[in-house]
Amino acid sequence: MNIKPLADRVVIKMVEAEETTKSGIILAGSAKEKPSVAEVVAVGNGGIVDGKEVTMELKVGDKVLISKYAGTEVKLDGEEYTILRQSDVLAVVE
Amino acid sequence: MNIKPLADRVVIKMVEAEETTKSGIILAGSAKEKPSVAEVVAVGNGGIVDGKEVTMELKVGDKVLISKYAGTEVKLDGEEYTILRQSDVLAVVE
Amino acid sequence: MNIKPLADRVVIKMVEAEETTKSGIILAGSAKEKPSVAEVVAVGNGGIVDGKEVTMELKVGDKVLISKYAGTEVKLDGEEYTILRQSDVLAVVE
Amino acid sequence: MNIKPLADRVVIKMVEAEETTKSGIILAGSAKEKPSVAEVVAVGNGGIVDGKEVTMELKVGDKVLISKYAGTEVKLDGEEYTILRQSDVLAVVE
Amino acid sequence: MNIKPLADRVVIKMVEAEETTKSGIILAGSAKEKPSVAEVVAVGNGGIVDGKEVTMELKVGDKVLISKYAGTEVKLDGEEYTILRQSDVLAVVE
Amino acid sequence: MNIKPLADRVVIKMVEAEETTKSGIILAGSAKEKPSVAEVVAVGNGGIVDGKEVTMELKVGDKVLISKYAGTEVKLDGEEYTILRQSDVLAVVE
Amino acid sequence: MNIKPLADRVVIKMVEAEETTKSGIILAGSAKEKPSVAEVVAVGNGGIVDGKEVTMELKVGDKVLISKYAGTEVKLDGEEYTILRQSDVLAVVE
Repeated sequence: MNIKPLADRVVIKMVEAEETTKSGIILAGSAKEKPSVAEVVAVGNGGIVDGKEVTMELKVGDKVLISKYAGTEVKLDGEEYTILRQSDVLAVVE
Repeated sequence: MNIKPLADRVVIKMVEAEETTKSGIILAGSAKEKPSVAEVVAVGNGGIVDGKEVTMELKVGDKVLISKYAGTEVKLDGEEYTILRQSDVLAVVE
Repeated sequence: MNIKPLADRVVIKMVEAEETTKSGIILAGSAKEKPSVAEVVAVGNGGIVDGKEVTMELKVGDKVLISKYAGTEVKLDGEEYTILRQSDVLAVVE
Repeated sequence: MNIKPLADRVVIKMVEAEETTKSGIILAGSAKEKPSVAEVVAVGNGGIVDGKEVTMELKVGDKVLISKYAGTEVKLDGEEYTILRQSDVLAVVE
Repeated sequence: MNIKPLADRVVIKMVEAEETTKSGIILAGSAKEKPSVAEVVAVGNGGIVDGKEVTMELKVGDKVLISKYAGTEVKLDGEEYTILRQSDVLAVVE
Repeated sequence: MNIKPLADRVVIKMVEAEETTKSGIILAGSAKEKPSVAEVVAVGNGGIVDGKEVTMELKVGDKVLISKYAGTEVKLDGEEYTILRQSDVLAVVE
Repeated sequence: MNIKPLADRVVIKMVEAEETTKSGIILAGSAKEKPSVAEVVAVGNGGIVDGKEVTMELKVGDKVLISKYAGTEVKLDGEEYTILRQSDVLAVVE
């Protein structure tokens, strides 16, 4: 099964947040807004979105930081994914 | 009876969400926002919507993921449909 | 007496929603948002609305689906009508 | 004394809503939104309003339907008027 | 002391609202929104405001009707003034 | 230490509001919105802000009236300043 | 590990706010909105953001003042960072 996000959306697979790691990324404990690291698994085609040209900068395999409240969660073949707009992706972790 | 959605709207027929399937799509259990898979049964003509040119990318028969709170429910000949804007469709499942 | 809606508005006459019909349109029972079928009885001229060109696609006699919360109700010669913008009309039923 | 509304505003004099008339316009009893019939007594010059060209279609003497919550009430020489934008006028009654 | 309002703002001096006058303007008693008559005492230069060209139509000495909740009150040399945008002025009373 | 505000922002130093002065500016006692007089101590470069060209009209040393709730307070070398957008400045007092 | 913020975002490292310093910047004690000084550690590429060209004026190493509620906090290798849009940066401290 294959998901193709529409317009400027991407599908990401959340990486489980561990409370403490030696050198990895750890989500801030702030209750206000908990960002999460995730891997991009599908990317839309961009194009004209809400009347504005959008170029997709993200590609499959990118590790990204997103705000936890961004996007919509879906379950596919037993695994959880999140679909969100590229503009809701905060940063790429290289 | 035939529904023709206006502008950038599509009519979809929701697929009943099953709690657990072997390999199908399962809606996330999150109370926050429950997306649903659905089949497109009618597509508007697009055109100028709110002053912006909109091209319809969806076609009848597409399987789509939508946010559960998107759109308006209608009943036609005893079956429930949802009418929503193409921009509220998250992804196509192929 | 004659109503001429301004700009991109249409006047519709609501069809009484019946709970169950054999093959007609039935409003969804959802408390969230109850759409209604209605007949268009008057159509504005369109033109520039909020700085954007609007072409009226609806015509008198069209059967339309609208969200129940859209528009403003008026009573004329003892009958209830609703005035709403064309963009609040979800679909035409043919 | 003379009121000249600015920009795309009109001044209207509300017609007292009667609960029941034989063949007149009666305001819907809905608590949600009660429209009113009124007569236009002054019209602004239109022009550029919020960066967009607005042409005044209404003229003094027009009978109009407005949403009861639209506009601002003023009292002039003992009579009540309402000042509102032309775009808040729903329809002209001919 | 001299106030020069910025952009599309004007400074007005409120006229005390009297409950009843023989032939003057009286504010509506509605608790919803009480407009007031005022005299323009200073006018900004207009120009580009929020990306849009604004021409000042008001001039010092104009008697205007404004919504009571519009603008910001200031006290200068013991007298109260209100600074508001020209677009918040409802009408000129001639 | 030196603050350079970004884009269309200015840094102002609030003038302590005195309850009563013989001929100075006094803040209105209204609990709704208390404007304040202040002196401009730094000015941004303007330029393209949110897609629109902004020219800075304020200069260091200007006495300005602002709404008390506008901007963000900062403390520098023991003194309080406020950073706000030029469009939140109501008027210049000459 | 390396963070590359997308579009018009920057990554900043908050400087711990000390209640009182002899000559440094101190955050205002106002509960309303507490700005913070921070150092820029990564800068996005700018470009077309929400349909508008954005040029990045900030560079790595800049000391900036931001509103405390702006942006999203992340933890990287045990240190806290904040990702926010350049337009949410109030000023550069030189």
